[in-house]
Amino acid sequence: MSAFAELHRPGAPLLLPNAWDHASAAALADAGFEAIGTTSLGVAAALGLRDGAAETAGATLDLAHRLAHLPVPITIDIEDGFSKDPAAVAGYVERLGPLAGVNLEDQLGDPATHAAVVAAVKARTPDVFVNARTDTYWLGRPSLDETLERARVYVEAGADGIFVPGVTDEREIAALADALPVPLNVLFSPNTLTVARLAELGVARISTGSLLYRVALGAALGTATGIRDGATEFEAPSYTTVDALAST
Amino acid sequence: MSAFAELHRPGAPLLLPNAWDHASAAALADAGFEAIGTTSLGVAAALGLRDGAAETAGATLDLAHRLAHLPVPITIDIEDGFSKDPAAVAGYVERLGPLAGVNLEDQLGDPATHAAVVAAVKARTPDVFVNARTDTYWLGRPSLDETLERARVYVEAGADGIFVPGVTDEREIAALADALPVPLNVLFSPNTLTVARLAELGVARISTGSLLYRVALGAALGTATGIRDGATEFEAPSYTTVDALAST
Repeated sequence: MSAFAELHRPGAPLLLPNAWDHASAAALADAGFEAIGTTSLGVAAALGLRDGAAETAGATLDLAHRLAHLPVPITIDIEDGFSKDPAAVAGYVERLGPLAGVNLEDQLGDPATHAAVVAAVKARTPDVFVNARTDTYWLGRPSLDETLERARVYVEAGADGIFVPGVTDEREIAALADALPVPLNVLFSPNTLTVARLAELGVARISTGSLLYRVALGAALGTATGIRDGATEFEAPSYTTVDALAST
Repeated sequence: MSAFAELHRPGAPLLLPNAWDHASAAALADAGFEAIGTTSLGVAAALGLRDGAAETAGATLDLAHRLAHLPVPITIDIEDGFSKDPAAVAGYVERLGPLAGVNLEDQLGDPATHAAVVAAVKARTPDVFVNARTDTYWLGRPSLDETLERARVYVEAGADGIFVPGVTDEREIAALADALPVPLNVLFSPNTLTVARLAELGVARISTGSLLYRVALGAALGTATGIRDGATEFEAPSYTTVDALAST
């Protein structure tokens, strides 16, 4: 089992913050996070693209290469692999490397197709932790049965973990953690459950998804409008601190 | 005089927030800012490079092209033009276009060399507002005399404005605004002068430099560590709001 796989501990979950560029990833690594993920929304929005746009494949590849030297495992959000062709996705994941893991979304498509993609990636790059995401709750089809059935198919295909973004009900989270044969990953959702409560429910990995990028953008905007409104006091890391992140 | 040049009003300054990617620029334009600049620190740090690294030239070009369709004038921070060769810098600025302006730093090099760069850019792209930055105060040589002498040389070469980052003394700012034949640009500095006070001193343009990017990074990091520490309440624009910025 890889060092990254070992961080997926039911009851003592990996808190995985999602970065959008080198500086945010380096700052999170400096702050002691054990592993770093990426956010496809952040990567797309930075380029002026909608989340899910095929044009983000190249930028995601560049970001993966830039983060590869950081002193923590890196897992990359590659949406649906930017293709429905299993061989094409497996080739893309190989080009991302070396890396600890990837997230692959089913986007509620045919489970067999997604399973074929998972299997192709595991065959080509067996050491990459494949976190198979099912979008049942995320895309408004919150069925425990369908989620578990999709998860079963993905695990049979070789998925190392299952990601169910959007589930926030305590009983459903506990039921998923209990029923799944692999680590359960959920999305941290503001104003709902704490990390400690998610741990008690048996979650093995907690992602922040696009939250950090959205907070960052909101803070920048709030600062600009605050300056316009006459404020002068703002908190931020120094120029020197940010510039030095390039050396992390 | 260009629409962008007309926004440089001594006593009623242009507040120019500096973005680092498409989403931050689009959000600032949505928030009503009249023009948007960029931050070289943000562009470099996003790539894992030190500010000033020559490798940021390409990313800066890409960013300029991505921002070109926004409904406000865009001015690009191009450091020293990524070259000491006037023709090379002029060619680079032409490739950035169409755009409203550029910032060109002297980095305290020979004033005649910087003037030659300014002249070459104005000869090639006369409609681009060239904001000539002198690094006297920024690099620890806070001389009013040297600043004015360098500014005189740059204005003679065709500079449309003079940027003096790092000056925070009220009397020095007022003296610069009074003595310069072109608009004075200063950097907003937290915990010092308000926009209203800078206006009274005769400033024509106020930039935020790297502040917004640094605030953004600090907020993302604070959110991640807050989640780790058990917090659940965080403020951020929604996923939908951020995703929609791609259409701005």
